Amino acid sequence: MSHSGWTPEEKEAAQKAVELAYQREVAALIATLQNRVEQAACPNDVWSLHDFLSAKRHEMDGKFDLRDSSLIFMFATLVKDGLLHVGELEGIEKEKLVKISALARF
Amino acid sequence: MSHSGWTPEEKEAAQKAVELAYQREVAALIATLQNRVEQAACPNDVWSLHDFLSAKRHEMDGKFDLRDSSLIFMFATLVKDGLLHVGELEGIEKEKLVKISALARF
Repeated sequence: MSHSGWTPEEKEAAQKAVELAYQREVAALIATLQNRVEQAACPNDVWSLHDFLSAKRHEMDGKFDLRDSSLIFMFATLVKDGLLHVGELEGIEKEKLVKISALARF
Repeated sequence: MSHSGWTPEEKEAAQKAVELAYQREVAALIATLQNRVEQAACPNDVWSLHDFLSAKRHEMDGKFDLRDSSLIFMFATLVKDGLLHVGELEGIEKEKLVKISALARF
């Protein structure tokens, strides 16, 4: 197994962690939407909400990138953004976790 | 004044009526958003809300067309959609109102 390779067990662990982070980000997004929609009163509030949601969708489409070559960077971003703790990446080898932790501090 | 022309007074009346219809449509949209966001629970709810808002914005951008040549059709659409009553188009000449009423029934 090369340093950049992911075993089937690691990929399964990665998949679970990604789903957890994705659910958390969606839950936070729903809370933000509920807050913004509750206070919406004028056309500009609606269209700026639409712009916000367009940007967020684009950002999330890019962030949750499950290609093997992107997993380290993706997890570093998720940890940095507070969507995952490194401790939740159980099942992924130590060397990768060290890289993820280091990148998350940038 | 040709049949297709709009006097400054008519344009002012048209502008006011359009603003009223626009505010009504936005108010209805905000109510719909509040209802949908309140019930949102999963990613699909959020992205389908975004799709809905994208379509609605596109539809409204096309519907509120203030060019002189489009006013009759625009008002007919607003009446047909229940966003205006013909009685709220005070200040616009009778002949135009007859056309608007007729088109709104299509």
